[in-house]
Amino acid sequence: MARTASLSGFPEWLPQERLVELHVLDTLRKTFELHGFSSIETRAVETVGQLLRKGEIDKEVYGLSRLQDDEGEDATSNKADPNALALHFDLTVPFARYVVENAGYLAFPFRRYQIQKVWRGERPQEGRAREFTQADIDVVGDGELPFRYDVEIALVIAEALSALPIPDFRLRINNRKLAEGFYRGIGLTDTAGVLRSIDKLEKIGAAKVAELLKGELGATDEQAALALELAGIRTEDTSFVERVRALGVKDDLLEEGLNELQQVIEAAVQRAPGKVIADLSIARGLDYYTGTVVETVLVGHEQLGSICSGGRYDALASKGNRKFPGVGLSIGLTRLVSRILSQELATASRSVPTAVLVALNSDDSWYAAQDIAAQLRGRGIATEVAAKAEKFGKQIKFADRRGIPFVWFTDDHGKHQVKDIRSGEQVDADPASWAPSEEDLHVRITTA
Amino acid sequence: MARTASLSGFPEWLPQERLVELHVLDTLRKTFELHGFSSIETRAVETVGQLLRKGEIDKEVYGLSRLQDDEGEDATSNKADPNALALHFDLTVPFARYVVENAGYLAFPFRRYQIQKVWRGERPQEGRAREFTQADIDVVGDGELPFRYDVEIALVIAEALSALPIPDFRLRINNRKLAEGFYRGIGLTDTAGVLRSIDKLEKIGAAKVAELLKGELGATDEQAALALELAGIRTEDTSFVERVRALGVKDDLLEEGLNELQQVIEAAVQRAPGKVIADLSIARGLDYYTGTVVETVLVGHEQLGSICSGGRYDALASKGNRKFPGVGLSIGLTRLVSRILSQELATASRSVPTAVLVALNSDDSWYAAQDIAAQLRGRGIATEVAAKAEKFGKQIKFADRRGIPFVWFTDDHGKHQVKDIRSGEQVDADPASWAPSEEDLHVRITTA
Repeated sequence: MARTASLSGFPEWLPQERLVELHVLDTLRKTFELHGFSSIETRAVETVGQLLRKGEIDKEVYGLSRLQDDEGEDATSNKADPNALALHFDLTVPFARYVVENAGYLAFPFRRYQIQKVWRGERPQEGRAREFTQADIDVVGDGELPFRYDVEIALVIAEALSALPIPDFRLRINNRKLAEGFYRGIGLTDTAGVLRSIDKLEKIGAAKVAELLKGELGATDEQAALALELAGIRTEDTSFVERVRALGVKDDLLEEGLNELQQVIEAAVQRAPGKVIADLSIARGLDYYTGTVVETVLVGHEQLGSICSGGRYDALASKGNRKFPGVGLSIGLTRLVSRILSQELATASRSVPTAVLVALNSDDSWYAAQDIAAQLRGRGIATEVAAKAEKFGKQIKFADRRGIPFVWFTDDHGKHQVKDIRSGEQVDADPASWAPSEEDLHVRITTA
Repeated sequence: MARTASLSGFPEWLPQERLVELHVLDTLRKTFELHGFSSIETRAVETVGQLLRKGEIDKEVYGLSRLQDDEGEDATSNKADPNALALHFDLTVPFARYVVENAGYLAFPFRRYQIQKVWRGERPQEGRAREFTQADIDVVGDGELPFRYDVEIALVIAEALSALPIPDFRLRINNRKLAEGFYRGIGLTDTAGVLRSIDKLEKIGAAKVAELLKGELGATDEQAALALELAGIRTEDTSFVERVRALGVKDDLLEEGLNELQQVIEAAVQRAPGKVIADLSIARGLDYYTGTVVETVLVGHEQLGSICSGGRYDALASKGNRKFPGVGLSIGLTRLVSRILSQELATASRSVPTAVLVALNSDDSWYAAQDIAAQLRGRGIATEVAAKAEKFGKQIKFADRRGIPFVWFTDDHGKHQVKDIRSGEQVDADPASWAPSEEDLHVRITTA
């Protein structure tokens, strides 16, 4: 299993690995649908103008051009041409475009999940791929969106992640209003600049962030110290509110942010105990967040980076005066699945969907074998028919090699038997009623 | 619903349309897995060298280049550089590459299904998109692959298509060996050239094909007439064998092809009656087919083109002397779904997964409402909770606008009632046991 991708940054799974990924995909879909989220997909391609609209200059975007283009276009011109096509690098920007385009056909608040591949032309490195799958949920309102959806989205994601075969996790939640209000309150007006510096805290440490704040943003020692004190607050309950207040900063936006974050944490303590913390160091790089911001770590795998991120965006999508505020979270599905596979956190109980191989007595018995297979499939039992009437020992070996647990035999008098090739046990069986145990009916994903 | 895609050739579905597509995807997956096919996905990207290896010059390939590339690469260089990246235009070529790369980890014959998007930079037109989903099944052997898999693949596809909400269909099956042997037998040695001409039969008619055969391939009147007579044979049973023999041509390869096609049609008459015909005009444009070739039409929608094509390829994948012959079929899923949607052949019973909206008495009742929702979800009932304690009439309207059939009320004394907002009927209900009818539990796809 320790294969490396033949094209760096473009992981591909073996069939038994794909079964683990399918289990993750199915589990997320089920959870999202139980919470009333509708599935959509958007095209893989956006115009360059759309993709770079929000100043996403730090994402390496793949431009497209037709190899056989006779009009002499090339990708170099893409950089200049906002109508040129490029692959999307996330699902939020395409979703915002979709909402605006289809607003007349959607019922708001619109709840959607979207599970698709995205592409980033990054230099490949541990935990980063050039092609990977994201699983997003968002709720978008028409004009306004009650804050309660920020609370709900966090709870849905906590429930979805809890259902996956992964280690324990923590949603680390902050609020942009809280942070920006606080910075403003202590006299740092370039709040976006401060956020960008604070975002580097885990990478470069407090001392270097203080230098940045002082050197680049003109903060005083005291301002830098306060900003870092705020970022140091991390609580499992709503006690962060008192700790922030103890810093003595007054600002309306700060109060609004405190109140919002308090609502999220209060609900989480009750409905997802232990899964969510208030972490005032969370900044998120992206410009479009306006309130709640979230990152998620796998406990014991912190160096993997955030496996689920997102937040509230009040102005990402608009159509004239009509605004579509939203809140959403995005699971880094490929990052998660890569980790599950590389550390064998979960494995598939077998490598093929097939439960039964119908063996052939003679080459002529293929039709009769198809009838038996059809009966089994009709009752939901995945079944293959042997292609050649080899010796039974060879047909059993064939099943064994493919990981199929049962082999079905029918003798010339029409007597049926089925053999569990793991135990060797062979019993009489009726194709109209025999079934494997629940355990063997479908591939199961078991955690280590 | 009569929307046009905002980017020509890149269709996107509304949530209620996506439900139809999901139904098609789920149905195919279920059928394929019941027949023992394993899921895989390959990366969207191949090297240009890999993609153009089989001389696929008629596919318009999208090349990739990083917009922010500092090394001055551009897409123009892709045409020359076989290591440049491009989007795959089908799933067969990537699958062949995957098999060769992972041969040491796969159990042969390897049965896989693969449902993914592919891209072609074509000028968009009716029935053709630039981004579309294909659903492929293939069986690939190591060294050899019994012919029986050609028969099986056709039957699996007939079963899969029969399970979809689409009009009746016909698999039109021919065999390259039959055609090539026949052409050779009548003295036409450029058999690939003849196939290419015959492939144009439906487009340009018999007279023009005869001209091509005579003008470009040097056929005599008699040779052209015989080639066209062969292409005119179309039977629902194995009587095509006699009709070919009646043309008086002798050739070993022809005999082999006749025998193979006979096996497929014989099995189909028995196991998929009415779904398969022998159609000796089918040529398929692609070079890599070596035996069975298949196209599929929707009855009454013939002008849509083939909705499922493929065949046997004995030499697509190899690793040194090791050959991996295969046989497979590819369903044009987007083409099918587009047709289902545009002609409303099937519709979703509602537009959201949600069955129940839990209404709020007061803003404080949100937590209690979440408890009720969790109980319902625990029993598989998709449930949303209202975000605001508006007047009940407004909350019912909210459910109605989103297409949610049931609204749940809990009064201040903890008494529960559930209202079917379509009939207006309201009954006492227990969150631990109440369930909607089977019909209302999940979104159903109903055919027109």
